[in-house]
Amino acid sequence: MAMEAAVVVPRGWRLLLLVSAAGLVALGAPQPPNILLLLMDDMGWGDLGVYGEPSRETPNLDRMAAEGMLFPNFYSANPLCSPSRAALLSGRLPIRNGFYTTNAHARNAYTPQEIVGGIPDSERLLPSLLKEAGYATKIVGKWHLGHRPQFHPLKHGFDEWFGSPNCHFGPYDNKAKPNIPVYKDWEMVGRFYEEFPINVKTGESNLTQIYLQEALDFIKRQQAARRPFFLYWAVDATHAPVYASRPFLGSSQRGRYGDAVREIDDSVGKMLSLLQVLGLAESTFVFFTSDNGAALVSAPSQGGSNGPFLCGKQTTFEGGMREPAIAWWPRHIPPGQVSHQLGSIMDLFTTSLALAGLKPPRDRVIDGFSLLPALLQGQLTDRPILYYRGNTLMAVTLGQHKAHFWTWTNSWEEFRQGINFCPGQNISGVTTHTQEEHTKLPLVFHLGRDPGERFPLSFASTEYQDALSRITLVVQQHQDTLVPGQPQLNVCDQAVMNWAPPGCEKLGKCLRPPESVLEKCFWPH
Amino acid sequence: MAMEAAVVVPRGWRLLLLVSAAGLVALGAPQPPNILLLLMDDMGWGDLGVYGEPSRETPNLDRMAAEGMLFPNFYSANPLCSPSRAALLSGRLPIRNGFYTTNAHARNAYTPQEIVGGIPDSERLLPSLLKEAGYATKIVGKWHLGHRPQFHPLKHGFDEWFGSPNCHFGPYDNKAKPNIPVYKDWEMVGRFYEEFPINVKTGESNLTQIYLQEALDFIKRQQAARRPFFLYWAVDATHAPVYASRPFLGSSQRGRYGDAVREIDDSVGKMLSLLQVLGLAESTFVFFTSDNGAALVSAPSQGGSNGPFLCGKQTTFEGGMREPAIAWWPRHIPPGQVSHQLGSIMDLFTTSLALAGLKPPRDRVIDGFSLLPALLQGQLTDRPILYYRGNTLMAVTLGQHKAHFWTWTNSWEEFRQGINFCPGQNISGVTTHTQEEHTKLPLVFHLGRDPGERFPLSFASTEYQDALSRITLVVQQHQDTLVPGQPQLNVCDQAVMNWAPPGCEKLGKCLRPPESVLEKCFWPH
Repeated sequence: MAMEAAVVVPRGWRLLLLVSAAGLVALGAPQPPNILLLLMDDMGWGDLGVYGEPSRETPNLDRMAAEGMLFPNFYSANPLCSPSRAALLSGRLPIRNGFYTTNAHARNAYTPQEIVGGIPDSERLLPSLLKEAGYATKIVGKWHLGHRPQFHPLKHGFDEWFGSPNCHFGPYDNKAKPNIPVYKDWEMVGRFYEEFPINVKTGESNLTQIYLQEALDFIKRQQAARRPFFLYWAVDATHAPVYASRPFLGSSQRGRYGDAVREIDDSVGKMLSLLQVLGLAESTFVFFTSDNGAALVSAPSQGGSNGPFLCGKQTTFEGGMREPAIAWWPRHIPPGQVSHQLGSIMDLFTTSLALAGLKPPRDRVIDGFSLLPALLQGQLTDRPILYYRGNTLMAVTLGQHKAHFWTWTNSWEEFRQGINFCPGQNISGVTTHTQEEHTKLPLVFHLGRDPGERFPLSFASTEYQDALSRITLVVQQHQDTLVPGQPQLNVCDQAVMNWAPPGCEKLGKCLRPPESVLEKCFWPH
Repeated sequence: MAMEAAVVVPRGWRLLLLVSAAGLVALGAPQPPNILLLLMDDMGWGDLGVYGEPSRETPNLDRMAAEGMLFPNFYSANPLCSPSRAALLSGRLPIRNGFYTTNAHARNAYTPQEIVGGIPDSERLLPSLLKEAGYATKIVGKWHLGHRPQFHPLKHGFDEWFGSPNCHFGPYDNKAKPNIPVYKDWEMVGRFYEEFPINVKTGESNLTQIYLQEALDFIKRQQAARRPFFLYWAVDATHAPVYASRPFLGSSQRGRYGDAVREIDDSVGKMLSLLQVLGLAESTFVFFTSDNGAALVSAPSQGGSNGPFLCGKQTTFEGGMREPAIAWWPRHIPPGQVSHQLGSIMDLFTTSLALAGLKPPRDRVIDGFSLLPALLQGQLTDRPILYYRGNTLMAVTLGQHKAHFWTWTNSWEEFRQGINFCPGQNISGVTTHTQEEHTKLPLVFHLGRDPGERFPLSFASTEYQDALSRITLVVQQHQDTLVPGQPQLNVCDQAVMNWAPPGCEKLGKCLRPPESVLEKCFWPH
């Protein structure tokens, strides 16, 4: 589907947008804004005070919304972390950029450390495009686009990195499985649970503080160098095992998960304050969102809230993919606004390029739209939201209507073991434990009247017919033109785990890998 | 239980509070503030933008919160309308003021027009106490404390009334059942569906506009007369059948229920604006809340949202009794505050008296606390929230912990007929369809970590033991000293319906009542 809508270019930006690939910096034009993307891990729509979290423990994020623009209808590109992050940085659906599996139908796949694949070289990532345009680029936190050398973030456009290639699961024994390394730029500087402790009993870890310092330091350095910057702050404290540093432990009414949220909220406040103090606020575009819905399977102590929405992470119900989203750019975005634009994490790719005076690559389909018309002029652009699970288009939202072509939570087998993506929620025929095909007669919900997806429209109603015919058109366009990328998440190998990352020799922390055995990765849901 | 906590009296109010029953006006002291209580009907915690409603269609209420104080932990006194309203105006639990039934165990009861009972003369209501202190008092909208002559609001302290004694159910045929009258002061001026049309097909009705005009007119008159006023604005557009006037019909993304919310939000905006224009903002205390949780049984087109909470109206889960609540009093309440005080609708009784320089009656137990320490000084006072269903104490919240002594949604028989108070929600052993007694081993939830009441604490945990021992003490105190009032909602009679309300002769609208037959009212849930 061609995603190039007739976007009205805001006044004052027309000239900028005429400038093409080389970007503004090279041309000596006025410096484009800095870009700060704050990407949360498993944080849910309902986790912020401004989104109705009852304990209201996010004063800094709530203030960011009051000073900026809130998007209540903003979506990730996948209900799971790696594909969602690959989509953000490529501007493309996982089905195009390869972050999916064909090992089984409609399975969520990601990049554990036994994964062989990662982001293909053929994908043009946001940091790479911004770097070419003169931006200083840094990723702080979780990369998750592949951990083998060819996938290293500094090979894909980032100048600097402080963080980890995979989730902070563990601790491992370094025999059957190595602990995940923490990188500084090209080389590892330690491992989680070793040089970078996370106490899974108490929940204590200083990692968010370290990630905060990395961000503050980078911002200060770029300000001193007068270089535009792109900072991708991808912290993981709200992903199980959740953690917080000592001053925040026990500080939340919400338990340990809330402690992690409070520390992140505090960190965001410190970053925005620094931008103000350095006089960079008006020249820095900041966007806050999350990679997928709250992991209700880990609730209540290790999982967040999806507010009034159905189910959570791993599912294509609203709780799995609707995200908190706040844009902040003083003097450019008017304060206190709410935009009902259907937004996608992939829009951050196109929007960031537009801010840098760049056009998205023309040699491929880009799924992201520019949000500038919404941000700067309050305009709304019609566009669909596509909900994929692995290789399968599960659902589509267009306007207020959402059609489900497939429904599935997880298998009865998993569910009976206590793995529940929808705790406390059960909607007959909707939250199914077998993969139910509805392509012939989709379930359609009106998300305005029924945000919780509880009441499917009557198949006989005019509203159903109208909504479905509009959505069907969009789906046909999409599917007729879709060329799926080479699936990257099919093959696993114990030998590719983080046994001996670059830099391990200096630290004396190289481990011996086992024999290489390529296997089909097993994705249970 | 003696509910008189050690409340710290805010500075500047100490003197006022020393003045007793006669009140300030009589003494020539500085005029006490006007009091405007905005009581919604079946509006849920999740229906306001500021509480996370995704369509965010309540800009005026959201601004009221931004200029005032938001209470995320505020409760009604009952999951049903009449008892909740009787509790507000008496400051006492329904089990004390008689608004309950003993016809069957743990049944919600209210005041349909066949009810024989109503508010006992022995109850001292807020309007009566304020009137004695020199306030001009008016109720606009739904009374619901009994419709027979002795229960008339003007016999219980209101100077003026525009509205109805019962819910706007109908239309009726005036044979088996009369349409509900609309009163102006002592006499009826018409009936719903007749002189006061509600089109149940289109949802059109001008009633909210009429109620708005009544409020604006009253405020203007009192300002001109320089009299302090108490205005109780009890509108019912969000109670099924929901309605809105033509300009609001179809204006909401949320359907007809949302149209009703938008019209109320607009009306609240107009009232606050008038207070500003008249220079009364700083001398008027305004409080917004609702009588019980959203009626999920009527969702999605006729029922609202309880956000992340469990179940709705009729139940003693959080969705049944946790309410939106906003206090507004410029220059007295600092703007943009959130108070985690556990608040109750009964607190509006005691708080209003405190504002008027009055003490609550000393000859009876008053369950309401003064919220002034929370409002003016940000203090928190320990107090329990008691969740009754009819004659049965179902649950108690103290601090962050809630203990359920009984669980019940409704009967299997009703549930199988499609009457569902918890659509889409199902928590094994919690949302039960039989009355389950847990008094020996209550279910305990931590509402901070688990606001949705999905994960009962382990009976073996220290947290469970500690929380339960604290709650048990409170329950024992309460039950040891409880003297239940004479139940008012036991007896029904077709002859007492609104056949011939005062004023019907002038209008030629008197109907002939049937023979009087006293019956036990039937309360199915």
